[in-house]
Amino acid sequence: MVTLPTTLTRDAALALDAQSPLRGRRDLFTLPEGLVYLDGNSLGALPRSVPARVARVVGEEWGQGLIGSWNQAGWMELAGRVTARIGPLVGARGVDLHVGDSTTVSLFKVMVAACRLRPGREVVVVEPGTFPTDGYVADAVTRLLGLRQRWCDPADPAAALDEDVALLALTHVDFRTGAMFDLEALTAAAHRVGALVSWDLCHSAGAVPVDLAAADADFAVGCTYKYLNGGPGSPAFVYVAPRLQGDLDQPISGWMGHADPFAMERGFSPASGVRRMASGTPPVLALSALDAALEVFDGVEVADVRAASLSLTDYFIALVDARLGEVFEVVSPREPARRGSQVSLRHEQAYGVVQALIERGVVGDFRTPDIARFGFAPLYVRHVDVYDAVQQLVEVMSLEEYARPAYSTRNPVT
Amino acid sequence: MVTLPTTLTRDAALALDAQSPLRGRRDLFTLPEGLVYLDGNSLGALPRSVPARVARVVGEEWGQGLIGSWNQAGWMELAGRVTARIGPLVGARGVDLHVGDSTTVSLFKVMVAACRLRPGREVVVVEPGTFPTDGYVADAVTRLLGLRQRWCDPADPAAALDEDVALLALTHVDFRTGAMFDLEALTAAAHRVGALVSWDLCHSAGAVPVDLAAADADFAVGCTYKYLNGGPGSPAFVYVAPRLQGDLDQPISGWMGHADPFAMERGFSPASGVRRMASGTPPVLALSALDAALEVFDGVEVADVRAASLSLTDYFIALVDARLGEVFEVVSPREPARRGSQVSLRHEQAYGVVQALIERGVVGDFRTPDIARFGFAPLYVRHVDVYDAVQQLVEVMSLEEYARPAYSTRNPVT
Repeated sequence: MVTLPTTLTRDAALALDAQSPLRGRRDLFTLPEGLVYLDGNSLGALPRSVPARVARVVGEEWGQGLIGSWNQAGWMELAGRVTARIGPLVGARGVDLHVGDSTTVSLFKVMVAACRLRPGREVVVVEPGTFPTDGYVADAVTRLLGLRQRWCDPADPAAALDEDVALLALTHVDFRTGAMFDLEALTAAAHRVGALVSWDLCHSAGAVPVDLAAADADFAVGCTYKYLNGGPGSPAFVYVAPRLQGDLDQPISGWMGHADPFAMERGFSPASGVRRMASGTPPVLALSALDAALEVFDGVEVADVRAASLSLTDYFIALVDARLGEVFEVVSPREPARRGSQVSLRHEQAYGVVQALIERGVVGDFRTPDIARFGFAPLYVRHVDVYDAVQQLVEVMSLEEYARPAYSTRNPVT
Repeated sequence: MVTLPTTLTRDAALALDAQSPLRGRRDLFTLPEGLVYLDGNSLGALPRSVPARVARVVGEEWGQGLIGSWNQAGWMELAGRVTARIGPLVGARGVDLHVGDSTTVSLFKVMVAACRLRPGREVVVVEPGTFPTDGYVADAVTRLLGLRQRWCDPADPAAALDEDVALLALTHVDFRTGAMFDLEALTAAAHRVGALVSWDLCHSAGAVPVDLAAADADFAVGCTYKYLNGGPGSPAFVYVAPRLQGDLDQPISGWMGHADPFAMERGFSPASGVRRMASGTPPVLALSALDAALEVFDGVEVADVRAASLSLTDYFIALVDARLGEVFEVVSPREPARRGSQVSLRHEQAYGVVQALIERGVVGDFRTPDIARFGFAPLYVRHVDVYDAVQQLVEVMSLEEYARPAYSTRNPVT
């Protein structure tokens, strides 16, 4: 057995956890005893505040308050409560955020609205490594509006920009590799050619610093069930820069985006501000769960989240280098400034590796074709979890558990 | 005091309830003691099966099962379980239904997809009394596709049909008046000119018989939080006729509508069948609540629901005629075949009437400008509730409670 440097022992991990400004936050979550959960970038863990809140919304607000709860239980203001909580995590005012549709629908609304703000420009630039949906939506939107899609070089998206570009649609942190773009620099590059930018923050919000207002970003869409722990399939949020809201023309007009929903007018007059991004009746159960879930961020500094995230990913990379350096290629950027809150390892048998780890109580996930992906949600993942995960990984590899026949057939895992 | 005919006494109401094939169903719901709830056409009551199911999904499936619950708790199959339950209520196979987006987003997808199936045709026909969102979406879709909208005469929508029409988009039961269109006849009329039809079933599903397959309908969209009791803001369902599914091209492509979501391919290949209507990750909490809620329809015959609904609305109209015939105009059709499961009364001070009734424990709702609307959800509203509601209404009118100064300012009520 290799003798690890003292900085990489389990005791060193425990010492790092004891010093963390986020220590104790883990107690705000329900996590199965003994499980090392490194998949919070796919589905965040359950905050302890959620079950009671959901029970109250169902049993009291819906069951007893019935229709009156739209006013008396504040359901009409629920989306606003949620966006006020998300705002500080992404450098935005709550009033510049909308929440309520799925991530896909949100991307669709944003891309159409953005392209309409740049009439006469024909190109939407998309990065080929983006989450597939972002590409599908860009394809669908360009087809609908008679525009065209242009793939950019992931190593230099700005090279694809010119005066034909209406919209640069980028994912801030890559879902496969965890590589992070420079949001501010690329926003500025797009603005230099007169294009708008929309940022997919699905793998950023709640894990890495994002300052949309300071970067002068135009649009953003973010998932709430990953690092924001809103629960499976919880609704996405959308950011629209204040300077764009007055001319915003999104394609799915519904009564909740009308200036006066209860006037029930035949003609559509959009609400002022970002509320015009709304379409139908808000999903009250999901928004209530999300509102309660976001309480875990109360009093948390994003800078502390980032520091914890980098410490965890650094520690994971150092342990993998030291103990499994010959076995895995670290796909994620080693340079901290370019790294999100995940580390991806490449291995021909990555699917089996992930399955064998799950059997040992370490949950990461597989991304086709050969990526084992580990997410480090800084609010509840500790250095000692990282240590234990790598220890299990060492055993999986030395015992060749990844090669079990059961793993030759792949199950869908999101 | 007027002496009522023996058929209109409270004892007669109790006798009708005792004979109903739906008697006892009310026990499957949680309703506040003493409340007469006639707003199930806005927000359905809470089925008793929901709280425990939601608690399990949150606490066990999410909290303990975490990401593994997509497979182990059947989250991937959840939408299919829900559509299998809705199917029999609307005359469709579950596999021809999709559930997951808001009603507005569903209308948008359906209208774009329908128009794309009729290239070269330029008109979408909409009925002016439809719920505002339907008109807003038709307007948005025609603008996006370079088509135009045509309003039809509510008394004769077929008169607006000609060979320019791509889509006739009608609401089956009017949200204000409760008037019901002849779904089969109007579908046939549209087909005679080569147009497609989409039916908004928001105020039909779960309350009146709908047989989409027998009527050869093309598309339908329905709300699940009214007579289907899915909870506030629960996701809508969409129907696509099997003969149209193969060419279906809906505008919001996302990974969950891809033929092989987990292949994470760069190019979009739509799933076969109605699953191509899907976009993003399904809303698990809402779908779970809805799945549990639909258990109240287990073993229920739609014909019994319709018989109960007509008996309740007939009884309400008869009581209003007998006791308040000079005071209110019955706006809803008196002819049973043209009536949904609600009765709307016109009164200049309808807002005050509804508010005063709510204070007396009878919940209906107000629709601008002068409609007091009463919905009769046949699974939990009884004849005795109808009797008691009219008794309270008589008192509100005789004491002129509707004229209280507090009711001069209107609160938004959905």
